Amino acid sequence: MSYFDAASAAPLHPMARQALLASLDEGWADPARLYREGRRARMLLDASREAAAEAVGCRPDELVFTPSGTRAVHSGVAGALAGRRRAGRHLIVSAVEHSSVLHSAEVFEAEGGTVTQVPVLRSGAVTVESYAGALRPDTALACLQSANHEVGTEQPVAEVAEACREAGVPLFVDAAQSLGWGPVEGNWSLLAASAHKWGGPSGVGLLVVRKGVRFAPRGPSDERESGRAAGFENIPAIVAAVASLRAVRAEGAAEAERLRELTGRIRAGVARSVPDVEVVGDAERRLPGIVTFSCLYVDGETLLHELDREGFSVSSGSSCTSSTLTPSHVLTAMGVLSEGNVRVSLPPGTAEEDVERFLAVLPGAVAGVREKLGAPTPTVVTRADELVVDSLGKLCPIPVIELAKVIGQVPVGGTVRVLSDDEAARLDIPAWCQMRGQEYVGEEPADRGSAHLVRRLL
Amino acid sequence: MSYFDAASAAPLHPMARQALLASLDEGWADPARLYREGRRARMLLDASREAAAEAVGCRPDELVFTPSGTRAVHSGVAGALAGRRRAGRHLIVSAVEHSSVLHSAEVFEAEGGTVTQVPVLRSGAVTVESYAGALRPDTALACLQSANHEVGTEQPVAEVAEACREAGVPLFVDAAQSLGWGPVEGNWSLLAASAHKWGGPSGVGLLVVRKGVRFAPRGPSDERESGRAAGFENIPAIVAAVASLRAVRAEGAAEAERLRELTGRIRAGVARSVPDVEVVGDAERRLPGIVTFSCLYVDGETLLHELDREGFSVSSGSSCTSSTLTPSHVLTAMGVLSEGNVRVSLPPGTAEEDVERFLAVLPGAVAGVREKLGAPTPTVVTRADELVVDSLGKLCPIPVIELAKVIGQVPVGGTVRVLSDDEAARLDIPAWCQMRGQEYVGEEPADRGSAHLVRRLL
Repeated sequence: MSYFDAASAAPLHPMARQALLASLDEGWADPARLYREGRRARMLLDASREAAAEAVGCRPDELVFTPSGTRAVHSGVAGALAGRRRAGRHLIVSAVEHSSVLHSAEVFEAEGGTVTQVPVLRSGAVTVESYAGALRPDTALACLQSANHEVGTEQPVAEVAEACREAGVPLFVDAAQSLGWGPVEGNWSLLAASAHKWGGPSGVGLLVVRKGVRFAPRGPSDERESGRAAGFENIPAIVAAVASLRAVRAEGAAEAERLRELTGRIRAGVARSVPDVEVVGDAERRLPGIVTFSCLYVDGETLLHELDREGFSVSSGSSCTSSTLTPSHVLTAMGVLSEGNVRVSLPPGTAEEDVERFLAVLPGAVAGVREKLGAPTPTVVTRADELVVDSLGKLCPIPVIELAKVIGQVPVGGTVRVLSDDEAARLDIPAWCQMRGQEYVGEEPADRGSAHLVRRLL
Repeated sequence: MSYFDAASAAPLHPMARQALLASLDEGWADPARLYREGRRARMLLDASREAAAEAVGCRPDELVFTPSGTRAVHSGVAGALAGRRRAGRHLIVSAVEHSSVLHSAEVFEAEGGTVTQVPVLRSGAVTVESYAGALRPDTALACLQSANHEVGTEQPVAEVAEACREAGVPLFVDAAQSLGWGPVEGNWSLLAASAHKWGGPSGVGLLVVRKGVRFAPRGPSDERESGRAAGFENIPAIVAAVASLRAVRAEGAAEAERLRELTGRIRAGVARSVPDVEVVGDAERRLPGIVTFSCLYVDGETLLHELDREGFSVSSGSSCTSSTLTPSHVLTAMGVLSEGNVRVSLPPGTAEEDVERFLAVLPGAVAGVREKLGAPTPTVVTRADELVVDSLGKLCPIPVIELAKVIGQVPVGGTVRVLSDDEAARLDIPAWCQMRGQEYVGEEPADRGSAHLVRRLL
């Protein structure tokens, strides 16, 4: 089995396992108590906090442990917004933040706040200019991830932090995907991370609030973790989380280089050996272990099943693998193809042979899925130099497959009108046009769903 | 070492440890994923939910796992209040609930809600009549613990649940202290519990919301745990929590009887061998493992240190061991002595010899602390048949010690006026009067602090 979904959760690092076992007997008591078991627990907690702060590059009293990265984000965003309530009720996020940030923004909006989503380039990165342009006098908080969880693209955090600092706005950085590789550079104000992304156990997040940043915890709190993370501290897991962070950091530089070469090999190999594929995300400014690509005319869920049968565990941002029937908001914001989407995220230690075997298996798996899907005969009604393809009720990737089948039947300059009520078509038909050198004219409302107009150029 | 603070946190049950180790390798992946590691994690999570539901006595789809008991309470209370917003904005809690419930109530009050605190008898229990009397047409939610965490007194949950049901009000039960011993009887609507109280690992709470109970989760949520507990599930800890719950339940009946005998022995032994002691909490309707007593003229923190040196880990609700300088709200609500307070909570498996050794050591430890504190000479000003004791600036237990020293200097029928600015005096001077058969006349405002009037009867 090759587990290639480290961006969801990394297997437990051996050092985390060892530290967890050792601290189960030492760290179970209440660190607020004065007796010996409590003092031992407190010592473990204090030592972990110091080590974590060193790895993050902050003071120990700026860092608290939360029950997860998600909770760190929820508490951090809400606390920073409440602390800056007097400054205003405007929040900035990038369009490709993790759902925990976007959910926090939704709650803020529901409570009367205003949210600006900064768009990204096709690479998945914001530009410093567009981010800085979103800053307003009433901006209470700005959020930017250190690197994207779906496509691996790194964000210009240090430069955006500088722009925020000049505007007097604190920057919250979701560092979940990058903290295992190194500290986040720049003058950020708040930071969140999640241990199970770097090989620590589940149940541990980090929330850092720099001294001087106004912060007012929301909801009921208690005396634990400076009033910023209520509930009994999970000390054995905290000890394990920090031990594994130090371990992955120690191995980090060499392993980053090795994984970067392997993902580079996948980027090139996929583009070479799979027809009609789009490798997405920034080719240079990217995390070492993540590579993402989308395959035309492929159903993401079926492809994942095929790959699973071949022994590869990967994930997908395609609409057909989600419960919402919409493509990933990240791919949508980037404006790239979402159908047949595959994210490969290599855990540290991934063997070269496994990557080679993946590259050997993938073309056949994609071809197999395409063959299965190849059959549907589109309903076509000819109207002069326009064809109408009725794909109503059909889901990704069928509308694009039907479009591709008929485009040759109209003369160059003619149009194909694709009727579709699938959300993914809105993203995938323009993406197909870009890949094929055809013109996407636009979307028009229709009786049901939308009509997508495509002009044949080639 | 004898660890007698199981009500704070129980050491990890061997079954929890075993299950945790086994599931570290099987349960680390994302249970929302479709590949093999995800499916394995999902199976572990589903099986754990079924087993937990069976132990609680609910349906699996009524139970979610939270990152702690505190989070289960915070989410449960907030969600139930939001779900019943249309019914009204009134919340009932008992005066002796866990701080997580009271903190939730404070937040609700800050948001414009109204809270009724139902008082308790000197035993620590509410009466069904007083609880039922607090129900109003606009009551959105009622909260009652199954048993008290500081004194072990069991609450009449089934009867209160019945009264709530008749009024159409859901009852939220904090079962943190009792769930390891057995399911909570009665027609409650919501329930919360915490794994590390029954020997499970830290990082796992349970929240049960009965079908048909209106519930609207507050704050940002995600697709995990039915939208009621955001963040990556901590599956190894969940598996361990449920395995240990089943294990302690299997041993429960016999162990409960054994511990009840041991705590009964402490209740009797302390009352017999320590002078000027008040054993608090209901002598009959109580948890098997908890016994709490308060010692006149004793500083709780010093006594805890003495006991720690003798190898006993216990906790205290005295003001002198807390950071807030106020006695525990539980002892305050019960109206019992708070000075020199000691809570002994025996973990399952406690050896009889350890309890006997505790009883042998305690009288000397208490006497030692009293001797150290015995010296202060109170400032006394005589005014006819009244003495004024100036205890301003002195903390528990000094004001009571000074009162006890001078009471013999006024004639029977005369009064002593104790000037004190210590919060604990408000509780401890009346308690002393009750223990000594003297009359507590009342409290009057003074230039600084209060004047407590005591009339000598004996």
